[in-house]
Amino acid sequence: MSEQAIQVSVAHAAARREAYLEGFKELLRIPSVSTDPAYRDEVQRAADWLVDEMARIGLDNCRAIPSEGHPVVYGEWLRAGQDRPTVLVYAHYDVQPVDPLELWESPPFEPTIRDGKLFARGAIDDKCGVFVNLKAVESILAASGTLPVNVKFFFEGEEESGSPSMEPFVKTHKELLAADLLVISDGGSYEDQPLVFSSLRGLVAGEVTVRGPQRDLHSGSFGGIVHNPAHRVGEIVAALHDDQGRVQIPGFYDDVRPLSEAELAYLKSTEPLFRKELERQSGVRAFWGVPEYSLLERQTAQPTCDVNGLYGGYQGPGTKTVIPAQAGLKVSMRLVADQDPHDIGAKFEEFVRGFACDTLEIEVSTRGESWPARLLFDEPPVQAIHRAFEATWGKRALIYRQGGTVPVVGMFKQELGMPITNLGYGVGDNGHSPNEYYTLAHFPLAIDTAIHFYHYLADVAFPW
Amino acid sequence: MSEQAIQVSVAHAAARREAYLEGFKELLRIPSVSTDPAYRDEVQRAADWLVDEMARIGLDNCRAIPSEGHPVVYGEWLRAGQDRPTVLVYAHYDVQPVDPLELWESPPFEPTIRDGKLFARGAIDDKCGVFVNLKAVESILAASGTLPVNVKFFFEGEEESGSPSMEPFVKTHKELLAADLLVISDGGSYEDQPLVFSSLRGLVAGEVTVRGPQRDLHSGSFGGIVHNPAHRVGEIVAALHDDQGRVQIPGFYDDVRPLSEAELAYLKSTEPLFRKELERQSGVRAFWGVPEYSLLERQTAQPTCDVNGLYGGYQGPGTKTVIPAQAGLKVSMRLVADQDPHDIGAKFEEFVRGFACDTLEIEVSTRGESWPARLLFDEPPVQAIHRAFEATWGKRALIYRQGGTVPVVGMFKQELGMPITNLGYGVGDNGHSPNEYYTLAHFPLAIDTAIHFYHYLADVAFPW
Repeated sequence: MSEQAIQVSVAHAAARREAYLEGFKELLRIPSVSTDPAYRDEVQRAADWLVDEMARIGLDNCRAIPSEGHPVVYGEWLRAGQDRPTVLVYAHYDVQPVDPLELWESPPFEPTIRDGKLFARGAIDDKCGVFVNLKAVESILAASGTLPVNVKFFFEGEEESGSPSMEPFVKTHKELLAADLLVISDGGSYEDQPLVFSSLRGLVAGEVTVRGPQRDLHSGSFGGIVHNPAHRVGEIVAALHDDQGRVQIPGFYDDVRPLSEAELAYLKSTEPLFRKELERQSGVRAFWGVPEYSLLERQTAQPTCDVNGLYGGYQGPGTKTVIPAQAGLKVSMRLVADQDPHDIGAKFEEFVRGFACDTLEIEVSTRGESWPARLLFDEPPVQAIHRAFEATWGKRALIYRQGGTVPVVGMFKQELGMPITNLGYGVGDNGHSPNEYYTLAHFPLAIDTAIHFYHYLADVAFPW
Repeated sequence: MSEQAIQVSVAHAAARREAYLEGFKELLRIPSVSTDPAYRDEVQRAADWLVDEMARIGLDNCRAIPSEGHPVVYGEWLRAGQDRPTVLVYAHYDVQPVDPLELWESPPFEPTIRDGKLFARGAIDDKCGVFVNLKAVESILAASGTLPVNVKFFFEGEEESGSPSMEPFVKTHKELLAADLLVISDGGSYEDQPLVFSSLRGLVAGEVTVRGPQRDLHSGSFGGIVHNPAHRVGEIVAALHDDQGRVQIPGFYDDVRPLSEAELAYLKSTEPLFRKELERQSGVRAFWGVPEYSLLERQTAQPTCDVNGLYGGYQGPGTKTVIPAQAGLKVSMRLVADQDPHDIGAKFEEFVRGFACDTLEIEVSTRGESWPARLLFDEPPVQAIHRAFEATWGKRALIYRQGGTVPVVGMFKQELGMPITNLGYGVGDNGHSPNEYYTLAHFPLAIDTAIHFYHYLADVAFPW
């Protein structure tokens, strides 16, 4: 792709910097809070606004497609030619709630610039992902009348409320969403360092209830003759790990795919940087974990089973000498490729049922299955991202693995099967907190990066 | 002791049945609720009422002795002669609160007779213990001008609020309370079966807090690298027992005194009766416990360590994927002779400290130390009790061991050193619930039993 074509588009965007910013503000003014039914019409209004905007830019087939929940905004431009790759770009136009409102220094849905920052709910999570991509495509189309690749936009309206309708939506729209590459345009970068994530852990949550007597019993009258459900809960918790933290659920590690040498070496090289950040965020004196893996491997490439909740009997101050009627625990298991959350859930349930006995009832269930997702790491589309950042930020992206879970990504991976990479445009802070802001200087830079990326992607031969 | 002397006293009591009942009602009308500071003056009024009553009966040295809490009512009659034993009779004149008041069918402090039952708060727990003893002594004194034994009455005013002042009181009044025998006149009998308890378990409570990160952390971002305090709590709980329920705290069983052959045989003979009652009360499908001991041994003659509370992280509905900042547990250990609650507490603390590690802070404490108490089982004073019940109920008492703890009794045992037995006069139900009642027909019978007991006790050669 000629650098000249890129520069024409970049110049187009530069000339419209103020207008693009005003457009961004207009989108930010729509309070598309997806979790709160009171904002249902506003989510729809944001979807309609985007459909109009995409049509104005010149995209085809623009529409707000109803789902079981909030609509998916779809638009495409597939006239680049069959020899060019088709990229499906995902972002989300819904936003987090604003509570506590009193902590906002300016109204969350009245975008306000202070100290070089654009304050508004959704500014970095993730209306920037939606809008930066649209402005890049608008600039390229306006400057050259064509796009270097075929593009499909898939903007979700319920990411911040757990994406309840996305799996059925994707299952019924596989053809519409077919592409050579999925770019997750969510997340973002440090001020001075572009970031791209290359994997997400999956999740399955478990819950165990152990029931003993029908009501709390006196520990004097019944201690020694009535089986205490809190003891069994302790036994289950203790049995989940060996004394160095390896999960003891039979078969738990069977499907863990080892990292490649390249990934291991890269992980090792980035550990000093991330270790410092993890120390800062966690505030712990010392890290912990299975000794045969490095810190980042344990955090991102190994599965876990953490007890998230433990309860039983009396928890107030002082003493209440009861044998509790029931006790329980909750766990979250973070999974890595190629673990199947349904399979791991079943193994957890079977493991817990092994603690059954005549004197206690054990109830176990699992839910919230999310697939782990390994995204591209150093394949050609990632090289296109590196080139785009080098051209605009002057440095390559730092590729990192996430320990957390973004359920839709694992689901996309599972349902759509195409390669996935990540290119988010959020630079700022407070994504889920009061005073969310976008670092204003990065707004035109992000559009430039997106323009470059679309062009460099045209140089990738799919499948590589 | 001549049966004739007994019959004269019994006849005296029979002639005053109505007057005695009116006196009992008068005592029951005073709302001596010891836990509620609003009733402080009423507790004092009950104490003063008893002092006046004892003086009227002809006891000596009658007074309400201030303690750090509510007053102890004391009175004595020591003119039986130095060759006669001195018996210290304990009961308590304070009562439980009445909540929920709306469930009472008649006002709790307006004694009301319905269906042969006398409804009032304190009727069976334990104003009967106070009043029956006084009326027995009054009858004997009035009928014969003397008592067959020397008597000291020690009526506590804060049993229902945990007896916070009793230990210092007893420590500073050892001479006043010196006697050959202590009779705990609290508790009572089934309608058709006199009961006497022969042991109480002691108690020490423990609390453990395990602290990890300073705040709850995201189980995705930190799972695998941050030590989860809930896991350590599970490990501690699991380590407390082996898989058959034997407590694993080192040295826990060292001081457990085995039961005598006679006690074991008696325990075995009473098991069918108590098993049925324990099944009814607990509602469990099956009992549980260390296989080498019988049900009643496990319930009363073996120590326990029960987890009473367990907490950590998220306990609400659904899922919250955190590594909790802290988790904890509470235990109650029921102790048997000759375990020392301070020693067992120290052993528990040492055991828990064994779980210390670099990545978690463990805090452990113990409190609520109560001594176990073995009371008389078949010694001569118990034979006097059997004789008294045989003469009045037509059957011997069932001697039973209590799994629970009455802290003052263990403390008396420890501080006063004298032999202790139990002779309670409560026959009825709902001691700590609404509609507490005394079975009216048992009220004159109880006075007769007490009259007999004082006489038969004079036949006992102390020390036997």
